[in-house]
Amino acid sequence: MIIVLRPDATGRQIKHIEEKIKKMGLKPWTSKGEERTIIGVIGEEDALRLAPLEVFPGVERVMPILKPYKLVSRDFKKEGSVIDLGGGVEIGGNQIVIMAGPCSVEEEGRLLDIAQKVKSSGAKVLRGGAFKPRTSPYSFQGLGIEGLKFLNNTKKATGLLVVTELMDAKYLKYVEKYADIIQIGARNMQNFELLKEVGRSKKPILLKRGMSNTIKEFLMSAEYILSEGNFNVILCERGIRTFEDAMRFTLDINTVPVIKNLSHLPCIVDPSHASGHWALVRPCSRAAVAAGADGLIVEVHSNPEEALSDGVQSLYPEKFDEMMQDIRKIAEAIGRTV
Amino acid sequence: MIIVLRPDATGRQIKHIEEKIKKMGLKPWTSKGEERTIIGVIGEEDALRLAPLEVFPGVERVMPILKPYKLVSRDFKKEGSVIDLGGGVEIGGNQIVIMAGPCSVEEEGRLLDIAQKVKSSGAKVLRGGAFKPRTSPYSFQGLGIEGLKFLNNTKKATGLLVVTELMDAKYLKYVEKYADIIQIGARNMQNFELLKEVGRSKKPILLKRGMSNTIKEFLMSAEYILSEGNFNVILCERGIRTFEDAMRFTLDINTVPVIKNLSHLPCIVDPSHASGHWALVRPCSRAAVAAGADGLIVEVHSNPEEALSDGVQSLYPEKFDEMMQDIRKIAEAIGRTV
Amino acid sequence: MIIVLRPDATGRQIKHIEEKIKKMGLKPWTSKGEERTIIGVIGEEDALRLAPLEVFPGVERVMPILKPYKLVSRDFKKEGSVIDLGGGVEIGGNQIVIMAGPCSVEEEGRLLDIAQKVKSSGAKVLRGGAFKPRTSPYSFQGLGIEGLKFLNNTKKATGLLVVTELMDAKYLKYVEKYADIIQIGARNMQNFELLKEVGRSKKPILLKRGMSNTIKEFLMSAEYILSEGNFNVILCERGIRTFEDAMRFTLDINTVPVIKNLSHLPCIVDPSHASGHWALVRPCSRAAVAAGADGLIVEVHSNPEEALSDGVQSLYPEKFDEMMQDIRKIAEAIGRTV
Amino acid sequence: MIIVLRPDATGRQIKHIEEKIKKMGLKPWTSKGEERTIIGVIGEEDALRLAPLEVFPGVERVMPILKPYKLVSRDFKKEGSVIDLGGGVEIGGNQIVIMAGPCSVEEEGRLLDIAQKVKSSGAKVLRGGAFKPRTSPYSFQGLGIEGLKFLNNTKKATGLLVVTELMDAKYLKYVEKYADIIQIGARNMQNFELLKEVGRSKKPILLKRGMSNTIKEFLMSAEYILSEGNFNVILCERGIRTFEDAMRFTLDINTVPVIKNLSHLPCIVDPSHASGHWALVRPCSRAAVAAGADGLIVEVHSNPEEALSDGVQSLYPEKFDEMMQDIRKIAEAIGRTV
Repeated sequence: MIIVLRPDATGRQIKHIEEKIKKMGLKPWTSKGEERTIIGVIGEEDALRLAPLEVFPGVERVMPILKPYKLVSRDFKKEGSVIDLGGGVEIGGNQIVIMAGPCSVEEEGRLLDIAQKVKSSGAKVLRGGAFKPRTSPYSFQGLGIEGLKFLNNTKKATGLLVVTELMDAKYLKYVEKYADIIQIGARNMQNFELLKEVGRSKKPILLKRGMSNTIKEFLMSAEYILSEGNFNVILCERGIRTFEDAMRFTLDINTVPVIKNLSHLPCIVDPSHASGHWALVRPCSRAAVAAGADGLIVEVHSNPEEALSDGVQSLYPEKFDEMMQDIRKIAEAIGRTV
Repeated sequence: MIIVLRPDATGRQIKHIEEKIKKMGLKPWTSKGEERTIIGVIGEEDALRLAPLEVFPGVERVMPILKPYKLVSRDFKKEGSVIDLGGGVEIGGNQIVIMAGPCSVEEEGRLLDIAQKVKSSGAKVLRGGAFKPRTSPYSFQGLGIEGLKFLNNTKKATGLLVVTELMDAKYLKYVEKYADIIQIGARNMQNFELLKEVGRSKKPILLKRGMSNTIKEFLMSAEYILSEGNFNVILCERGIRTFEDAMRFTLDINTVPVIKNLSHLPCIVDPSHASGHWALVRPCSRAAVAAGADGLIVEVHSNPEEALSDGVQSLYPEKFDEMMQDIRKIAEAIGRTV
Repeated sequence: MIIVLRPDATGRQIKHIEEKIKKMGLKPWTSKGEERTIIGVIGEEDALRLAPLEVFPGVERVMPILKPYKLVSRDFKKEGSVIDLGGGVEIGGNQIVIMAGPCSVEEEGRLLDIAQKVKSSGAKVLRGGAFKPRTSPYSFQGLGIEGLKFLNNTKKATGLLVVTELMDAKYLKYVEKYADIIQIGARNMQNFELLKEVGRSKKPILLKRGMSNTIKEFLMSAEYILSEGNFNVILCERGIRTFEDAMRFTLDINTVPVIKNLSHLPCIVDPSHASGHWALVRPCSRAAVAAGADGLIVEVHSNPEEALSDGVQSLYPEKFDEMMQDIRKIAEAIGRTV
Repeated sequence: MIIVLRPDATGRQIKHIEEKIKKMGLKPWTSKGEERTIIGVIGEEDALRLAPLEVFPGVERVMPILKPYKLVSRDFKKEGSVIDLGGGVEIGGNQIVIMAGPCSVEEEGRLLDIAQKVKSSGAKVLRGGAFKPRTSPYSFQGLGIEGLKFLNNTKKATGLLVVTELMDAKYLKYVEKYADIIQIGARNMQNFELLKEVGRSKKPILLKRGMSNTIKEFLMSAEYILSEGNFNVILCERGIRTFEDAMRFTLDINTVPVIKNLSHLPCIVDPSHASGHWALVRPCSRAAVAAGADGLIVEVHSNPEEALSDGVQSLYPEKFDEMMQDIRKIAEAIGRTV
């Protein structure tokens, strides 16, 4: 940690800071430059991270040297994590894993129909929301536990794995029972109580990036889960909020290589939420795979005109199939499989 | 609702959309302009809001006419809501209500000391966190229920009301028991399950704006609470996330007059989180009062150098007292009291 | 254009607005709904676009129906524009055009060396700045006209076309003389005087998106150029400014398909500025091509450690060559060539 | 400057960096910590600022210690600059200077009428655009030199000073002749050629912040002007672009105290552009003065319904007068005058 002092910092202020550092069991190293004095801190800087050094008189700025996360970092684990999702499907390796299905679970028959179609196009995991976080209290809120059962039945019928969102810890046992992967949605990325709960689960967690959270905060939220013992975390970029209003969100495509560089965890992309419009899902998915994503999670609906949520961004199964053909070719071009 | 069609929309597509509208019990009105055909929808547009009309072939864009919120709107209730906080303190009227105290509850003695000081400077409500949402799992997470008891003891000793954050519904009964106002933090503004829970409480709710949520989404989250029966909601602007990195967040000062125009609910400002630095709290607080805020919630700590969280943005009690003198004069200049 | 009235709009206010519309030669159509009265305007809405209708008493909101741009729109020209850059190179067709070279022109020998290398890897256009827009007045500002001559000499020696930035109309004649494509930089995207000047040139214009301009504003700036008679405009996405600070800018990859949908103009991507770091240029370029970009403009430097600007985001020629191999395979996967 | 090395940086890489630093006449100081080695650089860091150190093998991050601007900094000049605008009006001192007038100069009679009214309410400077930067090429572009003459005539008739925008250096001599303060608009904040030109003028410059430029970049643009010899620069916050769409821009109110802390230059606020709606101008202006602004620049129009630009955000003269009464009281409350 580097502490930059104000040009008018007094000797007494400098001493006061040095003493604080020593009191925390660390060693200050003070260097008087021509324009600024700086104090470097030698030793484990985590202790200091919590001390509000900016508040000490004479301090202009505090610059941390180390990253605030540990367990999720590539410094901690050099090789990429390959997570076993069950049923012979792994994520984080050479194969790109495609998850697809409707935004919400609506009726069992339709769910089965969509599941069969996405499976035949190459999807390995069925997505579908039983609990839905909706901006309006008057919107469809999901079928709840019944929806989970529909997902589970469809899993049995098709052999697809199931990913579904958990919004409240009180339903954790149901989601654990009926699903293979537990999704934490973007709006709950910093719901720290929920993160701790799923950190104590054994199931793989699909953690979505909050719409205005930095990559650093994203990794810190993953750190919450790992620090409770669950290392099976899949990160998911799903678009960030910017000034641009031509799309619902701005897909931050560079997140994929940046995360693959900083962390050993697998990283996938959600082109449906990132773009908010079905016509953008195909180019967006192609870009994600080309940028190095380990998977995609895509909304597919056999009758978007009747969908109870997110119809606009859902692909018809035939369009999804076309997209999968592109994805396969691009995966091959960069030496991966789907 | 206005549906704008693509220039190449066919008669058949137009008919298909008109039929969908009629099927929902509404009346379409179609107007063929020189460059675009548009379909207006007459009747209650809420039904249609949930139908994904953008997905219909031939549709270019859908533009809602009405606001998506009802109960929080000034259209619903013309006069501003004045909320009784207990102990003779009201918010939303002529008096500006100041809430102040440490970021986290740390020890009981220090809390009492700070409480006495902010009270003597004119604060009516004591703030203090017992449950702390922290970006890092390794940061101090709050004293929990013990912290709530310290707050309650301090309330008894000073007569100040208490506001504290609730992060998880399982602690609702404790927060209801020990606090006068329940705070929902920025990171939980779209934790819809939690919003519904506090919507069923009788206590006033202080709802903070999410760091990247629009004013419309902010009002929709308040709508969740009102729609469950709790009309005692205080909105709090606390800074939004932008590209600017000179401050921790960007205080969106215009939120105050915009919300006072759109909604009947009281609106306050948190200058401490909005600026992230104690030196900005004073100008920021003055601006908030001048812009029409109904209150402030300010971090004050008697020893910021030792604070377990947010020391950098906490005011010393003496600085808080100076700020209060400014606030009083500005309030008077615009015909209000503190 | 749709004018939404306030719930309390009076008959007199409505009449006043209707009269204004008629006075402009248009026809108002007024519809009284249950909750809101709206006035539709029939006829050419451009006249009205300039009238500040929001300011009329009783008006709540004004919603335009038509897009504010004409000449750049796909409505105006259905098939994509293919622009002849000279030397047998076209952009906007099936072939993806790669532009590469150093950020700044520094010395002639080094420029030639880089040019030969990028040519042998498959670039068709040499990039290089003679006039440099630098945030600091103390940074290297470019070689000016001498730099243009170096570019021209290198063009003669290699057969590569040349693209270079114009920052001030007074140098237009020189840039026209020595370059094949005139670049308007992101910081000048709304320098309307400069746009008009290059609109009167015959040379193809490479217009970069401003770092915080919407796609709509981007197209409006292109409209400035087309409206002066120059239809040879290439649009370039180069990253937008967001809250994320892990990269220099956020590449807004969806801009490519959105623009290809809204406009007939070719659209390329600048992965170097969009990411700000050489290690991200390769995944970023792959994503751009996969998303449908018509070209790339990439910074390449044979000795980034000595570069006078943007060394961090420049690729070594060998890295550029590796990237080109990827690009070729991805182009092929989606049925295009490089 | 602090250079943080990667955990796997080799001794050879470290030596290579140290040699580069020495070659630039500076002294490296290397410290091997437990987790990272860092190299501090002693001496004038400006030389190094231009060297792309991130590109050196083994480097993880480079952190500058000093601010990149000099002449605009409070470190350079401790006391606030008070700028003489002519006619006995000074800005930057105790008096808050109000500039007001129409967005565009339209006709001479109306301009005079508005000027007399804003003067009688207490404005000291008349604003009005003769050259207008408009997003659309089809919008009113201003009266040009004729507009400048109208402004000058109005100045003679009323005694108000005149501020007007310069968009192109070729009109500098006219603006210098007819105006007292030269405005550089937000879209030209990084038009570095224009900044250099006005840096060579003797007139005070009103520099508006770009809608997505950081405070640091804002100060760097002012540095361009000062570095050419013109120290009479007034900074103007006019709203930044964010995700929020309830207003046209987000007024970044904290910019005022942040700039007053970092720089000796006066700082004013433009509440009209910052909010984009006349109803927000009054609370916004009150907030700006309360936050410590040295002045305001406000759009006032006697007939906004007929204004050729920005009618929506213009105040009627009577509303402006009411606002001025508020401003006067708030100024008094904080010990200043209007």
